[in-house]
Amino acid sequence: MIYRMIYPLVLNFVMSCVAFFVALKLINGMKPLFARARLCGKDLNKKDSKELIPESLGVVTGAVYLISMFLFIPIPFLTIWIEKGDYDFPHHEFVMFIAGLLSICCMIFLGFADDVLDLKWRDKLLLPTMASLPLLMVYFVNIGITTVIVPKPVRFIFGFDLDLGVLYYVYMGMLAVFCTNAINILSGINGVEAGQSLIIAISILIFNIIELQGTCCWQAHLFSAYFMMPFIATCAALLYYNWYPSEVFVGDTFCYFAGMAFAVVGILGHFSKTMLLFFIPQVINFVYSTPQLFRFIPCPRHRLPKFHPETGKLGMSYATFKMSDLHPLGKLILSVFSLLRLVQVETGVGEDKKFARVNNFTLINFVIKLLGPVHERTLTTIMLLIQVGGTAIAFIIRYHLVRFFYDVKEH
Amino acid sequence: MIYRMIYPLVLNFVMSCVAFFVALKLINGMKPLFARARLCGKDLNKKDSKELIPESLGVVTGAVYLISMFLFIPIPFLTIWIEKGDYDFPHHEFVMFIAGLLSICCMIFLGFADDVLDLKWRDKLLLPTMASLPLLMVYFVNIGITTVIVPKPVRFIFGFDLDLGVLYYVYMGMLAVFCTNAINILSGINGVEAGQSLIIAISILIFNIIELQGTCCWQAHLFSAYFMMPFIATCAALLYYNWYPSEVFVGDTFCYFAGMAFAVVGILGHFSKTMLLFFIPQVINFVYSTPQLFRFIPCPRHRLPKFHPETGKLGMSYATFKMSDLHPLGKLILSVFSLLRLVQVETGVGEDKKFARVNNFTLINFVIKLLGPVHERTLTTIMLLIQVGGTAIAFIIRYHLVRFFYDVKEH
Repeated sequence: MIYRMIYPLVLNFVMSCVAFFVALKLINGMKPLFARARLCGKDLNKKDSKELIPESLGVVTGAVYLISMFLFIPIPFLTIWIEKGDYDFPHHEFVMFIAGLLSICCMIFLGFADDVLDLKWRDKLLLPTMASLPLLMVYFVNIGITTVIVPKPVRFIFGFDLDLGVLYYVYMGMLAVFCTNAINILSGINGVEAGQSLIIAISILIFNIIELQGTCCWQAHLFSAYFMMPFIATCAALLYYNWYPSEVFVGDTFCYFAGMAFAVVGILGHFSKTMLLFFIPQVINFVYSTPQLFRFIPCPRHRLPKFHPETGKLGMSYATFKMSDLHPLGKLILSVFSLLRLVQVETGVGEDKKFARVNNFTLINFVIKLLGPVHERTLTTIMLLIQVGGTAIAFIIRYHLVRFFYDVKEH
Repeated sequence: MIYRMIYPLVLNFVMSCVAFFVALKLINGMKPLFARARLCGKDLNKKDSKELIPESLGVVTGAVYLISMFLFIPIPFLTIWIEKGDYDFPHHEFVMFIAGLLSICCMIFLGFADDVLDLKWRDKLLLPTMASLPLLMVYFVNIGITTVIVPKPVRFIFGFDLDLGVLYYVYMGMLAVFCTNAINILSGINGVEAGQSLIIAISILIFNIIELQGTCCWQAHLFSAYFMMPFIATCAALLYYNWYPSEVFVGDTFCYFAGMAFAVVGILGHFSKTMLLFFIPQVINFVYSTPQLFRFIPCPRHRLPKFHPETGKLGMSYATFKMSDLHPLGKLILSVFSLLRLVQVETGVGEDKKFARVNNFTLINFVIKLLGPVHERTLTTIMLLIQVGGTAIAFIIRYHLVRFFYDVKEH
């Protein structure tokens, strides 16, 4: 038991530390390559926005992560071998590692292709679905549980448990799509993509460590911890350079990579519901964004906050439109959101006073709406504190409120 | 048995046909994306070389290949299930598929990163080694044979068989590096990279079909056939656009992708020696290139043949240098190669007659040396005929000459 759990974890930790320093060195060293390849962009929230910042450095993080995992994989299996001597090789565990890495590698590749080639929206939905296929296959083969235990309040309708069958696979496929895109749309200020991913990853790791002490499913949580530690290390290295003022941007590559890493451990660790709890800010941001994502309200290409050079602070950014052009459903949404003080609507703007404007529907803008204009570094810090708050709520729900929905033994 | 072999093969064939048409459509449709991303280059062997040709389209081929394989993988396992009913899932076979695709996906990703970022030479050796790690692990776990049967003529030294141990893994790792780079250095004229890969893949498939009829190892050859058919389909689609005059270039991405696909089937199909036989022209090209690759003779950045606009034909390209600057070993090599009429050396060239020049050490230049200047399309055709000739020799060695080295039963 000690061989099986402690030694590989310690080695994983050591390798993660090495990966952190390798990633630090490589990100710094490879910046010129990205600039030469014109993978760079202006930082719109700075006074001197002429300087081009290298973009898509998430690809370096991803590559270092993959190489660390490739080097790590043999270790847990070697330690089982030391413990048990000659034995039947646990192919079913081994294939989980390989398939998880296949999905992650696939997603890094597609994310990088997206950064370079600027793919269409439909690809952003199709590609994560494809990349999650190996994952679903391994789930089917190794776990195959599609029965969910129904929460107590609705058991009088559905009974104690419900076999979702193929719908459960649809749910998992959508989870991969959601995770990859959720991080991508809560973005736009220095350090927020890498920062939120780091906090989610640390939350998952804490959850794994708590559950490792239980008797049930510790293998699944060990598996997840193996994947999360090198992720935390490489992500922290990226955050170091991406923190305000950013020396590098992370790119879609990183958001896709992070999202798929979370989907992998959530699905193959069989704790996808708990994992979603760590996405509370992302879920809120997604729900809040839907009127713009589904185009009921006009959606500008960039929704990041607007920089005011005179104060050096960030204010809300707006979508401007003619009221008369708005879809009826858009008008309704606007009224309701405005009534609930979720958005700030102004009419009679523009040169001929015929336009209306509303702040872009993002959590970041909403925070600025509550607090007023704020410095970019402060804003990122607030967003990350919200993420930490989300994790705290997630743990409260998972370990306390859960008893209102399930009997304790059921988990 | 019929379920296990015929049905999946037929479905794989049908999916490959679909993949061919999808790849055709996507390559054509995505050309503008590559141009916009400045992934494009001049065709140096054309009269009007101003037009920019989209480059690295191998990434589309690779993505279509991966998606086809993801969709195909469940099929052979479902058919086993239909045949046998509820059964122990063959995890060891399943993991071979997933690990093979992981190595291929990793290589496509790294190849594309190389195309975009223009990585250094040491990365071109390091990255395939890393990408082949999952493959070696699966080989270790699933096959694990590191004993080679010694050819008859040298048995008096080594005995009947020899356990190479860890050296066998070094050999396989080097095989992956060799395959990925061998295709990359036999390049430079329209259609030659995709063409040679297509012929090698078809050769492997023919070999698999022959061996499928045997009683031994048919599973390994079935596995290889599953990987080769979609490869042939997507490669053919790429060749359609890459054939003279090229509408697209394949990029390092494709060469890496193709090389790793061959390494995967060679290693996991346990027929790496036979697979290397299909690389005869590449091996000759590599050996012939070594004086330049190891810099004993100066090596210009591009070694592709030189276009003569007045005739529209391709002549040899040269490396020009001062004899006195040459490494002593370089001088020796030059004399020996010149004596054997393998290269054409001219002295007293340049403005002040102080320079010497020698044709670049590539198989393509050597063919031009033999035949004189030739049209590009003809040259590609000749190179591909040489490749076909190589395959014929490979089959003769594999099925006839082999008896001088091994007893028939030993294979």
